[in-house]
Amino acid sequence: MKGHLAAKPVKKANSNHFLSDVISISDFSRQTIELVLTQAAKLEKMPREKKAKILQNKLVATLFLEPSTRTRLSFESAAQNLGAKVVSLSEPQTSSLSKGESFSDTIKMANGYADIIVVRHSFDGAARRAAEVCTKPIVNAGDGANQHPSQTLLDLYTIYKEFGKIDGLKIMMAGDLKYGRTVHSLMYALSHFKDVTVYLYSPVGLEMPKYIIEETKNLKIHQTNNLEKFIPNVDIIYATRIQKERFPDELEYQKVKNAYVITNELISKAKKGVKIMHPLPRITEIAQEVDSTPAALYFTQAANGIPVREAILSLLQDVKK
Amino acid sequence: MKGHLAAKPVKKANSNHFLSDVISISDFSRQTIELVLTQAAKLEKMPREKKAKILQNKLVATLFLEPSTRTRLSFESAAQNLGAKVVSLSEPQTSSLSKGESFSDTIKMANGYADIIVVRHSFDGAARRAAEVCTKPIVNAGDGANQHPSQTLLDLYTIYKEFGKIDGLKIMMAGDLKYGRTVHSLMYALSHFKDVTVYLYSPVGLEMPKYIIEETKNLKIHQTNNLEKFIPNVDIIYATRIQKERFPDELEYQKVKNAYVITNELISKAKKGVKIMHPLPRITEIAQEVDSTPAALYFTQAANGIPVREAILSLLQDVKK
Amino acid sequence: MKGHLAAKPVKKANSNHFLSDVISISDFSRQTIELVLTQAAKLEKMPREKKAKILQNKLVATLFLEPSTRTRLSFESAAQNLGAKVVSLSEPQTSSLSKGESFSDTIKMANGYADIIVVRHSFDGAARRAAEVCTKPIVNAGDGANQHPSQTLLDLYTIYKEFGKIDGLKIMMAGDLKYGRTVHSLMYALSHFKDVTVYLYSPVGLEMPKYIIEETKNLKIHQTNNLEKFIPNVDIIYATRIQKERFPDELEYQKVKNAYVITNELISKAKKGVKIMHPLPRITEIAQEVDSTPAALYFTQAANGIPVREAILSLLQDVKK
Repeated sequence: MKGHLAAKPVKKANSNHFLSDVISISDFSRQTIELVLTQAAKLEKMPREKKAKILQNKLVATLFLEPSTRTRLSFESAAQNLGAKVVSLSEPQTSSLSKGESFSDTIKMANGYADIIVVRHSFDGAARRAAEVCTKPIVNAGDGANQHPSQTLLDLYTIYKEFGKIDGLKIMMAGDLKYGRTVHSLMYALSHFKDVTVYLYSPVGLEMPKYIIEETKNLKIHQTNNLEKFIPNVDIIYATRIQKERFPDELEYQKVKNAYVITNELISKAKKGVKIMHPLPRITEIAQEVDSTPAALYFTQAANGIPVREAILSLLQDVKK
Repeated sequence: MKGHLAAKPVKKANSNHFLSDVISISDFSRQTIELVLTQAAKLEKMPREKKAKILQNKLVATLFLEPSTRTRLSFESAAQNLGAKVVSLSEPQTSSLSKGESFSDTIKMANGYADIIVVRHSFDGAARRAAEVCTKPIVNAGDGANQHPSQTLLDLYTIYKEFGKIDGLKIMMAGDLKYGRTVHSLMYALSHFKDVTVYLYSPVGLEMPKYIIEETKNLKIHQTNNLEKFIPNVDIIYATRIQKERFPDELEYQKVKNAYVITNELISKAKKGVKIMHPLPRITEIAQEVDSTPAALYFTQAANGIPVREAILSLLQDVKK
Repeated sequence: MKGHLAAKPVKKANSNHFLSDVISISDFSRQTIELVLTQAAKLEKMPREKKAKILQNKLVATLFLEPSTRTRLSFESAAQNLGAKVVSLSEPQTSSLSKGESFSDTIKMANGYADIIVVRHSFDGAARRAAEVCTKPIVNAGDGANQHPSQTLLDLYTIYKEFGKIDGLKIMMAGDLKYGRTVHSLMYALSHFKDVTVYLYSPVGLEMPKYIIEETKNLKIHQTNNLEKFIPNVDIIYATRIQKERFPDELEYQKVKNAYVITNELISKAKKGVKIMHPLPRITEIAQEVDSTPAALYFTQAANGIPVREAILSLLQDVKK
């Protein structure tokens, strides 16, 4: 992997200049983002035996109080690749929470045995709350409709690995831009980079919120309800699922759930070398036929979750709060 | 352990002559079966410290999309005994599947972080499908009523360890021979060996399917609906549970569920040294009183799952697909 | 940590003088309790790398057939800190038990792969039954309303670490003393020590059972239904939750569920240096405001579960049954 980041002298992984908790992508400067990307690239090249010493004899707790298999397994793989032990909770219904225990108390107890705590929760702001009551680093693995910073970092890492840069790219975000946590965070993250153009396509009623467009003025933004309009311009189509569970109203979901499908025919209208990204799981937004084409970057993107989460955990390990 | 296999020069565990995936016992030749049995015997004698280096720094994913505690824990023990790390999914209801993700996509994502993937699924053919979309070795830990090859291999290993051979033995299969996946696979596996006699006892209506009897012509087969008829002849009684969940019709199950019980009295009519096997869990097919007799081989059989699964995982580790 | 135990010559951790199973606190003599406390203190000071060799290449199974996240994660952390591998079952509904397998058979199978088995079950006496059918050490992590010995040992360890002794202390037990398993066991354990005074406060109808008071005559016992009466006398207030799930009658629970709350105002009436303990989870028994005061010992107490469970596992490892 070669790119504009490679030239920069990067702080050592065990310096104390990283964040003390990974809660929100809005806490990340361009420099902090680049620290993660560089560390991920370094870990991808590192022999397994060497990597397995980084968190040796450390314990990582993954507390998933909302189901998310893919994210949990990715974090647990990353932690174990670094040599850490893992204790895992992934079933809200079997936890002490059913006895009425508060989330804060759960975190305070995990504080007593874990060196790093990865948290997923269905309530917005849960991860920030966890960080407040805990002396160990907290990693937010998704809190409601709010934040999922490791997803955004792996998106950026995927773009960076594929294109060797982020500056100057043209990216279409497609799908549910109203409720889609992933694209919201990606907007903020991309706004740290230079000369990035973002095309926003969504079905009517699922447009990107205005406050986000106003807060990411550094981006060149074009909006449309016509999927094909900007296709010839873009380097990347970042597709998202229409997420049933984020809709307050089932009827609103039914109207739009099959609003768009990315097919090989659509891709044929794009620039050569266009890449399709998707945070997964997909339902019908990307046709299966796309999977075997060079445009399909989404499984690579998912696999990039490992080095990026390794990077986050390794950078957090020596943090003093 | 001494037996007719010991004399054969066996391929090294890390040769590339093993299967690229373990999907069905029907993919196994006698030679491949013996490779597993010999490797299992070798691993049973190996000191723990040495064994723990075989899959060191490798990651095994156990994706149990249908519950099976015993099989999952056995695979996870085996993987960890070999030094592998394990990430585990065992609750379909908490997975991304509830968001509509396809099974293929789940496997493709696991492909991004795991070195070997153990899959259990309620649909026939799911494991073969997984192997098709995955570049890493797949181990089938049971797909519906279809296949469960590690069970068959541990059955064979148990027989081989106990009798020093498989050729020439007389084995009664008792219970539900119609729906019983275990006995179906065992029939095919035994048909690779010489001079094996199989007595098939089942309650009326639960007989072994005709196509299996036709496809295993190498066996000497005797069928009966009278449990005691062939008891004096046999070396092994392989009992199976009447599996409620495989019956399309609850009434059909109620009629036969208590059709037979293996008691000490029944065993007293058998040859000296007869052994009782059972894939477990049992319900009422074997009386508790049998547990403490020398005939009871079923807990040893379950324990043999560990070296056999260690053998499978260790033989797969260097496979190139 | 300094205390009266330090002077005693203690048996080596790997001697065979420990219990062969940890089932009930009533199996513990003062000497056995002190062996655990001393071992826990030793493990707390031990460097992680050294500790990680104690159970290296051993396998611990945690079979939680009743949900208890906190206890499970604490045991799994302890086992892994000692270098053990862990296989874990924590969802009764996904186990073979739903196929009708008996608890004894589950234990017998775990016997085939695990070196130590930690069991939690909703039925009284389940752990003792497990120990009877198993050749490997069993640790009871709670069986119904019966016993939870590692909780009692961590309570004692917390007291000993904080006060340097157990003899001579004055302890109030508050809350549900009728159904509270924790306080019952603590009564028996404290009765091994000298000159311990116990004040029992409970809402009317939830008094400590008479047979326990009679069986712990070595304690100086005072009973009251007035929370404030003995507050000025005590070194420790051991608060417990009113446990909804132990009440046969929901109405009985509703009457008493908010019977008492420990607040900073209440604590101001106690001796300087008073400590509040609680087995957690709490609901409303201790006001959140107490958490940040020096009186709050309950999160430290929960964290002490790690060295105490490490001590139990390390003492069991060389046991011959």
